Amino acid sequence: MSKESELRPMDAEQLREQAHKMVDFIADYYKTIENLPVLSQVEPGYLGKLLPDSAPNHPEPLQEILSDVQEKILPGVTHWQSPNYFAYFPSNSSIAGFLGEMLSAGLNILGFSWITSPAATELEMIVLDWVAKAFQLPHHFYSTGQGGGVIQGTASEAVLVVLLAARDKILRRVGKSALSKLVMYASDQTHSSLLKASQIGGLNPELCRSLRTDPSTNYALSPDALCEAISNDIASGLIPFFLCATVGTTSSTAVDPLPALGKIAKSNGIWFHVDAAYAGSACVCPEYRHHFNGVEEADSFNMNAHKWFLTNFDCSLLWVQDRSALIQSLSTNPEFLKNKASQGNLVIDYKDWQIPLGRRFRSLKLWMVLRLYGLEGLRNHIRSHIDLAAHFEELVRQDPRFEVITPRAFSLVCFRLLPRPNSEDDGNQLNRDLLDSVNSTGNIFITHTVLSGKHILRFVVGSPLTEERHVNGAWQILQDKASALLGNS
Amino acid sequence: MSKESELRPMDAEQLREQAHKMVDFIADYYKTIENLPVLSQVEPGYLGKLLPDSAPNHPEPLQEILSDVQEKILPGVTHWQSPNYFAYFPSNSSIAGFLGEMLSAGLNILGFSWITSPAATELEMIVLDWVAKAFQLPHHFYSTGQGGGVIQGTASEAVLVVLLAARDKILRRVGKSALSKLVMYASDQTHSSLLKASQIGGLNPELCRSLRTDPSTNYALSPDALCEAISNDIASGLIPFFLCATVGTTSSTAVDPLPALGKIAKSNGIWFHVDAAYAGSACVCPEYRHHFNGVEEADSFNMNAHKWFLTNFDCSLLWVQDRSALIQSLSTNPEFLKNKASQGNLVIDYKDWQIPLGRRFRSLKLWMVLRLYGLEGLRNHIRSHIDLAAHFEELVRQDPRFEVITPRAFSLVCFRLLPRPNSEDDGNQLNRDLLDSVNSTGNIFITHTVLSGKHILRFVVGSPLTEERHVNGAWQILQDKASALLGNS
Repeated sequence: MSKESELRPMDAEQLREQAHKMVDFIADYYKTIENLPVLSQVEPGYLGKLLPDSAPNHPEPLQEILSDVQEKILPGVTHWQSPNYFAYFPSNSSIAGFLGEMLSAGLNILGFSWITSPAATELEMIVLDWVAKAFQLPHHFYSTGQGGGVIQGTASEAVLVVLLAARDKILRRVGKSALSKLVMYASDQTHSSLLKASQIGGLNPELCRSLRTDPSTNYALSPDALCEAISNDIASGLIPFFLCATVGTTSSTAVDPLPALGKIAKSNGIWFHVDAAYAGSACVCPEYRHHFNGVEEADSFNMNAHKWFLTNFDCSLLWVQDRSALIQSLSTNPEFLKNKASQGNLVIDYKDWQIPLGRRFRSLKLWMVLRLYGLEGLRNHIRSHIDLAAHFEELVRQDPRFEVITPRAFSLVCFRLLPRPNSEDDGNQLNRDLLDSVNSTGNIFITHTVLSGKHILRFVVGSPLTEERHVNGAWQILQDKASALLGNS
Repeated sequence: MSKESELRPMDAEQLREQAHKMVDFIADYYKTIENLPVLSQVEPGYLGKLLPDSAPNHPEPLQEILSDVQEKILPGVTHWQSPNYFAYFPSNSSIAGFLGEMLSAGLNILGFSWITSPAATELEMIVLDWVAKAFQLPHHFYSTGQGGGVIQGTASEAVLVVLLAARDKILRRVGKSALSKLVMYASDQTHSSLLKASQIGGLNPELCRSLRTDPSTNYALSPDALCEAISNDIASGLIPFFLCATVGTTSSTAVDPLPALGKIAKSNGIWFHVDAAYAGSACVCPEYRHHFNGVEEADSFNMNAHKWFLTNFDCSLLWVQDRSALIQSLSTNPEFLKNKASQGNLVIDYKDWQIPLGRRFRSLKLWMVLRLYGLEGLRNHIRSHIDLAAHFEELVRQDPRFEVITPRAFSLVCFRLLPRPNSEDDGNQLNRDLLDSVNSTGNIFITHTVLSGKHILRFVVGSPLTEERHVNGAWQILQDKASALLGNS
């Protein structure tokens, strides 16, 4: 490469030229994404065989790298944006979210303190207020009061920071030596991130009460079970301090009864956290907003805009009623970060609301999503997926070989293939085999869970590209593979 | 907007059209960045006055949003990529890093488990091995052995995860009830993230020993001081368990003596972490590699590719000698994430090496940086900045009104304006005034620190766009403002 054509670390015109090429590469990717195997079919260690074992000493051209992406990287990618992706929960990429990521990466500022880019802090406060309003959250979550919203990387970090705030708040009252007596409550359907957060925070993971749920409540946490657990723990000299309720659990999108749980939390002086990571997005539609009833009693509330709200990963929204509790647990004030605005308490420094110090300008992408689609656009997006999930549920119900396991609340359908009639088979191996069988086609990707000992298949509609034909195609594959397994092919 | 022209959540051709516009916007930004006030001059609350208080119900066009970015957002941005940015440490944006961010946002996959995109896990392992090799790190940090590398978001998260691993490792040996007796060691120059990590981990922050440094060691940690502190703590029945040494401290880029510290750590059974967040990048050049001598004894080692290694934020590289210690502290294994590759221990699942569950495909950008610039390109980048910093240091030395405070090791110069001769002024207010005075011009941005009670100015060369003329221009402003303050103008 000649000196002149050599890529400089930064140069506006070279950036323009190369980035236009990358835009075309990515647009072409979306053009063909439907035809790629949605679940990568490579074997462990495949990539090491294809790449050299050292970094090059000298520059290589972009074209070579893009060829390698096409030929070596993409076969190892599981295409979360494929219309045939029905696994886990979605991770929406949208045009607006992508543009927001570009802009954020282009500016590449670190917004840890207000002064390091006032717009980053202030746009985050404004946009979180916008979403709070769109969700009809109580006013004490707005930045204008004692609380406010913040963008975390993930729901795992959101639950960790509020758990730490709650931990330190109770320890300030009862003394640090009580750390090993602190008790957390959640249902056995709660996301594993709560247990992980308790381990990180030095809490006793054995006092992370995983209260049993069953089909009688559609796997929602029972207020009676919670009351009983709290009473037992208090009687044993332990100190209840944290309750995590979920709106839309990971396995089956169960909705815990917030109003009753909130009352119990409040009367026991327990921090009440609501995790609506996935299902929160649906509540931008008035017809689903009732699932948030009771959130008024919550100390903190979380939803992931990066799941089902058209905002590229990562963008997890957390609101707290009392920001001082967060700040007391997470602030640091080294000399090299001091500045007049911070020292004068004139501003919010989001570094004190999170685990890391550095932070990206993530509010840009959420702002762009809200403006480029509008709330109505987001509602249409949610409704179209819920309609498709309802359609899939209906298809399952029409085939007597299958059963729907729990009532569908949002865009997840939990179902399974029934064991052969009059057999002693519990059906678990059958459904494991069905899962492997459909996923190994590469044509669709679904995942599983276990509910009350039953191995269940999960079908989630959530990719922006998914249309009815994709859902029908997926069902056809499931039916065909079921027939093959049952020997009726 | 008509139905047809309306922006869809995702559509390849609409994405192409809109993203090309965004490329031009960002390229134009870099074209004019030099003329923008580098430190934003807005007042707290400025943005709330410019934006509406609710999200729009209906879609708005991209052009309107880009106008708002130009007119409302950019004035509130502190331009970390400006050639006149000499503050904190740099946060490099490069063409390659930006392209990598685009690609990662375009694919928008979550690589928490190997199966969720095998290429994401495997490319991360490969690229971390590449960098380990380029840095001549010991083989036990390679993924082929018991250790391996991982991309964390920030150095704060890196030190947190290894602190947790070290905490749990010692507690498995001495029993959980010893949590409040665990002692950490570091110099008083160590980054505040260690203290924050100790608070998060439920450790006793008072047992985070901040060992005093002074000019006699250029603010490096003294092995004797460490030995003494460890002996005292053992004598008091406490349990030393963690040592953090720094290669390139935040205030003055001091380099702790790794070989001596490592020996002490080893002989006391203490986890030895090396934080080279900023200065690590320099060690890609053979002439600086000696700063890493002694890293062979380290249990973990961290450098931030997103600081000075042309990789856009966030990309913090962490290597550990024994990955099982990390995994034991951070793994979760809920049913809904189980899969054959993970259950069979055939693969690495990076979710068990970090705080969050979800993770972006960040290795793409590091891979693109290494390939588009090559190791030689990275070395040129580092050397050009160190040369410019040496040039600045020389300018300061030539002006008798100023003094250089500590010997320059990398691209940071610590200096201050001397108090007027024969005055009783300690010079601290004078340097505070000088800082405010130069930063309020908007023409350059520098920051400060305090060393041995002296208020010091920090001048860091690190932006890819900085040339000698920018350094000369900055020095001219400093001289002019100094003259004005000293009344010699």
